[in-house]
Amino acid sequence: MPMSSTPDPRPSTDLDALLHPRSVAVVGASANPDSPGHDYLRSLIDFGFAGPIYPVHPREREILGLTVYPNLRDVPGEVEFVISCIPADGVPGLLAACAEKGVRVVQLFTGRFSETGREDAAELEREVLRLAGEAGVRLIGPNCMGLHDPRLGISFRPDLPRRAGPVAFISQSGNNTTEVLLHSDVRGLGFSTALSYGNALDLDESDFLAYLAQDERTKVIGAYIEGVSDGRRFLDALRAAADAKPVVVLKGGRTGAGARSAVSHTAALAGSREVWSGALRQAGAVEVATQEELIDLLVAFAFLSGKPGRRTGVVGGGGGRAVQAADACAEHGLLVPPLTDDIRSRLRERSPDLWDWIGNPVDQSILAGTGAGVSGAAILEMMAESPEFDLLIANIGEDWVLGRPNFARRLAHIVDRFVEIGRASAKPVAFVLGPADSPDEERWRAMESARSALVEAKLAVFPTVERAAWSLSRWVEWAEGRA
Amino acid sequence: MPMSSTPDPRPSTDLDALLHPRSVAVVGASANPDSPGHDYLRSLIDFGFAGPIYPVHPREREILGLTVYPNLRDVPGEVEFVISCIPADGVPGLLAACAEKGVRVVQLFTGRFSETGREDAAELEREVLRLAGEAGVRLIGPNCMGLHDPRLGISFRPDLPRRAGPVAFISQSGNNTTEVLLHSDVRGLGFSTALSYGNALDLDESDFLAYLAQDERTKVIGAYIEGVSDGRRFLDALRAAADAKPVVVLKGGRTGAGARSAVSHTAALAGSREVWSGALRQAGAVEVATQEELIDLLVAFAFLSGKPGRRTGVVGGGGGRAVQAADACAEHGLLVPPLTDDIRSRLRERSPDLWDWIGNPVDQSILAGTGAGVSGAAILEMMAESPEFDLLIANIGEDWVLGRPNFARRLAHIVDRFVEIGRASAKPVAFVLGPADSPDEERWRAMESARSALVEAKLAVFPTVERAAWSLSRWVEWAEGRA
Repeated sequence: MPMSSTPDPRPSTDLDALLHPRSVAVVGASANPDSPGHDYLRSLIDFGFAGPIYPVHPREREILGLTVYPNLRDVPGEVEFVISCIPADGVPGLLAACAEKGVRVVQLFTGRFSETGREDAAELEREVLRLAGEAGVRLIGPNCMGLHDPRLGISFRPDLPRRAGPVAFISQSGNNTTEVLLHSDVRGLGFSTALSYGNALDLDESDFLAYLAQDERTKVIGAYIEGVSDGRRFLDALRAAADAKPVVVLKGGRTGAGARSAVSHTAALAGSREVWSGALRQAGAVEVATQEELIDLLVAFAFLSGKPGRRTGVVGGGGGRAVQAADACAEHGLLVPPLTDDIRSRLRERSPDLWDWIGNPVDQSILAGTGAGVSGAAILEMMAESPEFDLLIANIGEDWVLGRPNFARRLAHIVDRFVEIGRASAKPVAFVLGPADSPDEERWRAMESARSALVEAKLAVFPTVERAAWSLSRWVEWAEGRA
Repeated sequence: MPMSSTPDPRPSTDLDALLHPRSVAVVGASANPDSPGHDYLRSLIDFGFAGPIYPVHPREREILGLTVYPNLRDVPGEVEFVISCIPADGVPGLLAACAEKGVRVVQLFTGRFSETGREDAAELEREVLRLAGEAGVRLIGPNCMGLHDPRLGISFRPDLPRRAGPVAFISQSGNNTTEVLLHSDVRGLGFSTALSYGNALDLDESDFLAYLAQDERTKVIGAYIEGVSDGRRFLDALRAAADAKPVVVLKGGRTGAGARSAVSHTAALAGSREVWSGALRQAGAVEVATQEELIDLLVAFAFLSGKPGRRTGVVGGGGGRAVQAADACAEHGLLVPPLTDDIRSRLRERSPDLWDWIGNPVDQSILAGTGAGVSGAAILEMMAESPEFDLLIANIGEDWVLGRPNFARRLAHIVDRFVEIGRASAKPVAFVLGPADSPDEERWRAMESARSALVEAKLAVFPTVERAAWSLSRWVEWAEGRA
């Protein structure tokens, strides 16, 4: 058995230390900017990893200004964390070197193990696990993108968002981790940790959940899971995590077709949908069916706060939006009560011509007419102050604004007022703003500014009123369960 | 009874002629660029209406370079179509002038009739209907944005898309019409007609459906309906339309809260959800629950063609996407069969190291590794040619590409290949590309080019794989019903 220079017969399970290394080596570092071995190295540099970074490659001398070592054994200092981008058959040799260097964690981007469905590859994977155990090294992966921690300065792609924050995401899929990070960033979500862990050969979802349950930087946990090897251990870890903070789970391989695909992706045994849904519910986790739903609920749990309740006040958007908002609320179990007598009497003072026509949801096109004397924002403020409303939905109504002269200034003004009210409100407020996807540059910029102003204020923004209503409803269910 | 200068005691129901006027007057035209009376006029000019355009206003002399007439009676030429932006109490007088001028249609942007819930306003509305009947004038509205027909050169907002095409949309909501037009344009949908018809006082959804059923420019009909006054007449018209072409209906006011909101929006009596769903199904229309679903199905019906079947081939995106695609297909009733022996033997030739690991869905990350020797596009082509697949889903996988060097060129290359295959395929192909909503200008431009290339090739593009699978499934159900 290869001996470590700082021998530790029992692999450490102090994940907090393992996931916060003070030095990192990239084995299989590459000068080719179109390769993972380059991406990992450049990510460490660009994200600002504070400790020493050691590229390892048998023939290169310098990459991105860093001295390259021909072998891990040649690295002069201590190495706590190794990122492996070498082919699978080199991993046993790497683990021997890791043992000598006292490495604590090896993150295996390296794939083509059991997920190929081949017996020789699966045999090599078992051998890797055995060697790691002997070496006192913990493994992340194989077949994974690994750790993304913007505070620490580690990531797997230099272009990923730098935004740090209260959300943790663990995923068997690297592709899905990238998608979630990119699509969460435009929603304003910052991450404590994101972890793509592939085949979960050693460290697995249960380890990560146990760690995140007690991680103080993490307030919300999201997970994409294809399969687990130890169901009981997983449910214990999940229950502990869900007791501590909201946990949102997207289960991949819920169907026969999905399960077959999962086997060739991460060699995961997916299990039946009914068993999974029941187990997730019993453990107190929130199950979602799509990546969009996952991100919507991460937004809801990260940004909504207040007392749960279902009486919803809705403003903004024209008449069609008002009707569709009411339908969406009702279909997702929210209530849309009439305006209170108090609000109606205040509207009567300010808008004697129209007050009796204004309802909940507030049809913004009524207020846009002549002689309204009251704005949607003003009514949102009244609802925020009224004890008769628990939740608020604020439609920005950008499609109308974009047709007006000076739309950029006008949109900014509406957003400013809504941001002010959203920040001051003790109640959960869901804002509705569609994507900044206009082919016209001026409109894209105006929408992008609106989006940015809302999410930088840490407000919960949803792209449609239906997704806002659905998310509020799931948030209320969860919060009621905690009350 | 006021007499028309070209008297016609029975109002015309030849909607094709009524909706293709040769001359238009905007009564209540305005020099204020932030007013509907300006928007209507400028839309006629900017969309290139070919006939004479007459602004009418008691005090203005010239607006946007056009001579303004103090009264409709003062207009020198014939006026077939009047757009009214004057207050409600002026409408009876306007109808008297319309009778004298032989006007055939009055489109009433003018609102504050029965939708206010006030008895005097409802009484005025009944008077308006009576006067219009006497004058031989047909009404669109009141309380509507009216007609958008880019070929004819009529619209209600100068910034709306100019794209003409095979889709018709009728809607009780002007706001929703604007949203549908803007959000359909980035999906490549062109419109024969869009019609916001508000309170449906005279011409209503039944008239419009009967017209669109036989309109040769229209291949697909979408409708947003809050309520109908004559259920039997509506169902007859809907059945006739749905027999002729696909009709997608979004029903507003499905819930108690939505129905209450609909009353104050368009004075519509919404009816129960169950009755509506059953009636729509019996009539052969396709019911949807959100505006996103509506647009997804307009895309499907406008761009998908081929024989219906459920055996789906999926390419593109990484392993997580592959698993989620398989789940989405299976959950929406599509089949995800294994690759055929023929395709496998061709893969074996081109990719001896990996062929046995590649499945359906195709995990693009396997192909991105060294030694794959085959691209996702090449496998998509094999599936397009194989008799064992009925439907195809092509994930662009842009989130991975955006992290590579020269991502713009690379994305364009992938899209070019997919466009080529999509155009050549006799089978329905759904492309999956997320919104071009990056805050980064270079990424926005790259995504915008990708989107544009796909939709200009008249390919069906969906923002998520789940929405693609759902839309394909609904398309297959519809097409099977016609087979």
